Amino acid sequence: MDAVTTPRWAQRMQQVQPNAIGELLRLGAEPGVMSFGGGYPDAGLFPIAGLEEVFRDAIGGTGGAALQYTVAEGRPQLRAQIAARMAADGAPCSVEEVLVLQGGQQGLDLLGRLLLDPGDVVVTEDPTFLGALIAFDPCQPRYAAVPMDAEGMDTDALEAVLKATPQARVIYTIPDFQNPTGVTMSLPRRRRLLELAEKFDLMVIEDTPYRPLRFAGEHLPTLKSLDRSGRVIFLGSFSKILAPGLRLGWAVASRPVIERLTLLKLAADTQCSTLNMAAASLFLERFDVDAHIATIRAAYAEKKEKMLGAIRRHFPQSVTCTDPEGGMFTWLTFPEGFDATAFMRDHALPKARVAYVPGASFFPVTPRPNHARLSYSAPDFETIERGMAALGGLLKRHL
Amino acid sequence: MDAVTTPRWAQRMQQVQPNAIGELLRLGAEPGVMSFGGGYPDAGLFPIAGLEEVFRDAIGGTGGAALQYTVAEGRPQLRAQIAARMAADGAPCSVEEVLVLQGGQQGLDLLGRLLLDPGDVVVTEDPTFLGALIAFDPCQPRYAAVPMDAEGMDTDALEAVLKATPQARVIYTIPDFQNPTGVTMSLPRRRRLLELAEKFDLMVIEDTPYRPLRFAGEHLPTLKSLDRSGRVIFLGSFSKILAPGLRLGWAVASRPVIERLTLLKLAADTQCSTLNMAAASLFLERFDVDAHIATIRAAYAEKKEKMLGAIRRHFPQSVTCTDPEGGMFTWLTFPEGFDATAFMRDHALPKARVAYVPGASFFPVTPRPNHARLSYSAPDFETIERGMAALGGLLKRHL
Repeated sequence: MDAVTTPRWAQRMQQVQPNAIGELLRLGAEPGVMSFGGGYPDAGLFPIAGLEEVFRDAIGGTGGAALQYTVAEGRPQLRAQIAARMAADGAPCSVEEVLVLQGGQQGLDLLGRLLLDPGDVVVTEDPTFLGALIAFDPCQPRYAAVPMDAEGMDTDALEAVLKATPQARVIYTIPDFQNPTGVTMSLPRRRRLLELAEKFDLMVIEDTPYRPLRFAGEHLPTLKSLDRSGRVIFLGSFSKILAPGLRLGWAVASRPVIERLTLLKLAADTQCSTLNMAAASLFLERFDVDAHIATIRAAYAEKKEKMLGAIRRHFPQSVTCTDPEGGMFTWLTFPEGFDATAFMRDHALPKARVAYVPGASFFPVTPRPNHARLSYSAPDFETIERGMAALGGLLKRHL
Repeated sequence: MDAVTTPRWAQRMQQVQPNAIGELLRLGAEPGVMSFGGGYPDAGLFPIAGLEEVFRDAIGGTGGAALQYTVAEGRPQLRAQIAARMAADGAPCSVEEVLVLQGGQQGLDLLGRLLLDPGDVVVTEDPTFLGALIAFDPCQPRYAAVPMDAEGMDTDALEAVLKATPQARVIYTIPDFQNPTGVTMSLPRRRRLLELAEKFDLMVIEDTPYRPLRFAGEHLPTLKSLDRSGRVIFLGSFSKILAPGLRLGWAVASRPVIERLTLLKLAADTQCSTLNMAAASLFLERFDVDAHIATIRAAYAEKKEKMLGAIRRHFPQSVTCTDPEGGMFTWLTFPEGFDATAFMRDHALPKARVAYVPGASFFPVTPRPNHARLSYSAPDFETIERGMAALGGLLKRHL
């Protein structure tokens, strides 16, 4: 072949650049590395036997229908089952208000395309989910980041940001056990956020992949359940309660939003895997998924305790961590001046064989280098103990 | 709930509107309708037993790894198997030049985002695949359509279009058994298209979902195999050779293109279903997929003969159809002045319970109403005979 022709890339590609998630998923997969990086569920908790059964029956059933094309919205049975689960969580909706997605991530991508012109502003928590930023980036938005505290997004700061940002179009939030901080938004903050969305006429994206994984504290209503004007677009996921390898999530929103998201879904990939949708439906029909979720919750509660205990025992006191009431993450704060990215590259990975996600890439506007995200969901107890001991030992030498 | 708030949609949504494919997939699914509309494979040919086996083993194998997250590019084993199949088809490539996709459709969506700014021109065959138009539309391109004849895209006309269209960025073509016409591009035209792409410095998207399904005529090389400068981006699909419900396809292109497509893939939906990729790999490893494809080809050859025979016997002579050498479609040309959309709505559907795809929506620039696409792949022999007889009888009364 002659020299490879490089095309002129579209303008939007200026905002689509290599990022930390892809590289870190790779590092975490290297043999011998104790990874607390990727937001992986514990594969030991996947309901293997149930999935074997439902995939077998879905493949064999009804003349290959589960292997054929279906409609872009997703199989009607699964949409109805999702609507029923929404109702059980305080946010009843019609089947027409449900769109099945290729994981919650696809919801972020399609919503960016539905709502964002170049220069529009997405208002996020500071820090926020890196995957949301990379999903929105091809639409060339700007970001406004709202500080958080132990009650989640600071809604007084949010009001100030909205007053100063007429280009704001949408508020993106993860109210439950946020990624990356593990922090949960309090009920007063939830109500206040919706008041401000109303006042400033903004849409709200409520991203809830970890919501079913509460292992402490009080159950709180979703923003969607408090929404009285159809402003909230709810994203849910089966990745953390069944398995991420199925790539199934969903959006619940008003019919005008779902109708247009469905057009974008059809254009993007025609539909989700018919087979995976059929198998998920059979699973929800035959098995007690809430009992399964209770098992996951109990396991993650124990792992969280192990990790926080190990951090307390092994880390220098100048490093603090959040104490999540659910989900998969704790968020480390190192002393000012500490660079968690450089420390991982120069020390944690080569010397302790420990991987985490350096915090800088979670900040959409101004990276703060003295943070890191640790995930306790996938590693076993021994790895948690050994990893925290090794990391803590290194930190003590450097702090 | 109060009145539903409708957000201000992004500008690109002006070019994202309800379209014929979604509606027609619905009509074709109604009980009692003989559908020759959707491009559905014959579900009776899905390798059910083999898929049951490989899904069971993929789910049960290696500690749930096939249910866990994997890398955005797709599982390495499947990428290597795709590269081997590309080599066997005359276009060797490295594993790094392969990206696994959520069906070929996702390739079109990601390529639009990689290459197209608003106002850029996509050069297509006239008519062309509707799914490609809806994939590109959110990027707000314009289209230039090049007439076809029995040898495919008219490359003299292509040269004239390219001379007149400095905004042209990419040529989109389905060289083998085109959707919707069933026409195959001749070898001289393939070579000439690449010369013109070189001369005018354009990228070429070669979309090949039907390529393995040749049942007559001479095997022709892919554009990719003739490409000497990395201009051709090849899209392949497992939908027609395994099952569309798996949602698996792939892109093969130069490394700079694949690297950027992978960033867009990560942003769009993280990755394809790990499980479906693992199962497809096991299938390719254990079963003779080429023998399976030979079975599909033989079945579609027979169905094509049935349909063309029935058309000859039942249709008025003023209606002509193409005689495809493979794939799933024949293309009807009615006399000038005939409106195939109105005829379907007013006569074919209500009176004959026959569905086809009216041709107008396949024309990206100037719809021509006197065409229709018929698919012979999914219906059985009896439905083909009854459907063509009913449609032909109606046509004879109207022409």
